[in-house]
Amino acid sequence: MDKTLVVASGGIDSTVLAYHCAEFKAVELVTFRYGQKHVREAEYATALAERLNVSHDIVMLPTLWGSALTTPGIEVPTRAYDKETMSSTVVPNRNAIMLSVAVSMAVARGIREVAIGVHGGDHHIYPDCRPIFVATFTTAMYVATEGKAEIYAPFVYLTKAQIIQMGAALDVDFAQTYSCYQGKPNHCGLCGTCNDRKKAFRDAGVHDPTLYDCPDLLEG
Amino acid sequence: MDKTLVVASGGIDSTVLAYHCAEFKAVELVTFRYGQKHVREAEYATALAERLNVSHDIVMLPTLWGSALTTPGIEVPTRAYDKETMSSTVVPNRNAIMLSVAVSMAVARGIREVAIGVHGGDHHIYPDCRPIFVATFTTAMYVATEGKAEIYAPFVYLTKAQIIQMGAALDVDFAQTYSCYQGKPNHCGLCGTCNDRKKAFRDAGVHDPTLYDCPDLLEG
Repeated sequence: MDKTLVVASGGIDSTVLAYHCAEFKAVELVTFRYGQKHVREAEYATALAERLNVSHDIVMLPTLWGSALTTPGIEVPTRAYDKETMSSTVVPNRNAIMLSVAVSMAVARGIREVAIGVHGGDHHIYPDCRPIFVATFTTAMYVATEGKAEIYAPFVYLTKAQIIQMGAALDVDFAQTYSCYQGKPNHCGLCGTCNDRKKAFRDAGVHDPTLYDCPDLLEG
Repeated sequence: MDKTLVVASGGIDSTVLAYHCAEFKAVELVTFRYGQKHVREAEYATALAERLNVSHDIVMLPTLWGSALTTPGIEVPTRAYDKETMSSTVVPNRNAIMLSVAVSMAVARGIREVAIGVHGGDHHIYPDCRPIFVATFTTAMYVATEGKAEIYAPFVYLTKAQIIQMGAALDVDFAQTYSCYQGKPNHCGLCGTCNDRKKAFRDAGVHDPTLYDCPDLLEG
């Protein structure tokens, strides 16, 4: 049976992606630890695998360099969501690293398709979420594996609000997803991803079940 | 000053590459451990960094899947160098993984150029050593980093013999390089890379200083 290996962080996008892929094919999940402070999200990926009753690997990468998300002493920005401030949350080349390893794992298992939940809302800050990255990297992976692997990124032109609408239609329980860059038990409600999360639920017209420490602030 | 981050295994190709790059720019070395049985090669990379007096990182990756080079119980082939036998030594997507991580490290350090020693002799077996891989992957890395990183693979159209000739001109001491897939103190002289190494010295007309346990066998 055809399978898809889904890169799953435990956040909204990859959770909806896993439900979406599971509609068509068998899925396996893989989660990457790369020294992110918000490693709590990985627990949500594990719980996701249990709900879908699929296999799940957590792969330890080296702690990646050059980002507020991984560097002790560089604070994750809150309450200023301009491009310049948010750029400290870029982990250089993270998606290429995760996809390269996932492709390797997939080929070794005879799985052709590797799925990732990059989406339109991240294009302005994260270059490795853009359509041109997906296009060029997919070509490189196809070449590197003699056609044994392809990248599936069905959300690349969708907004996060559209992903939430798709997830709602698939009965995804969004309370079982985690996005916050602060990595505390509740979502902080102040960091860039918390703000994006709030906005996306509002724009989608879908109830947001998230427990935020600071529920009221919303910018943009 | 312009710098190049060289992916250095400790073998002939990346050693000559490091000497070559050091002619033009400052270099740093990075070596990857991915569960290879022939981890001895990393010691040669460390010694190379000491000879060049440059910084050197050894990055621990997860043990990669699906190759005789990393899987206990699957033997590294010897004495049969046809494509089918040698294909068990393919580590799926290895170069994409190493380059993705090296690019991430380079960008975090403000280094633009990442060099790798892929060459023409490996094209027939390893798809991630071919010019089309280098071309497509370079494009993807350029896109993923908004032009902050480029791949430099100057040997992609050269044979190993030509690399050895170039190394001889740069006074590389080839006794200080290690290729053998068996990972023992001496080169075995029987595995695919030992055979390639012997052939390349012969074809280059350069003296081979390597200590082989089995010096006489040479196929092709």
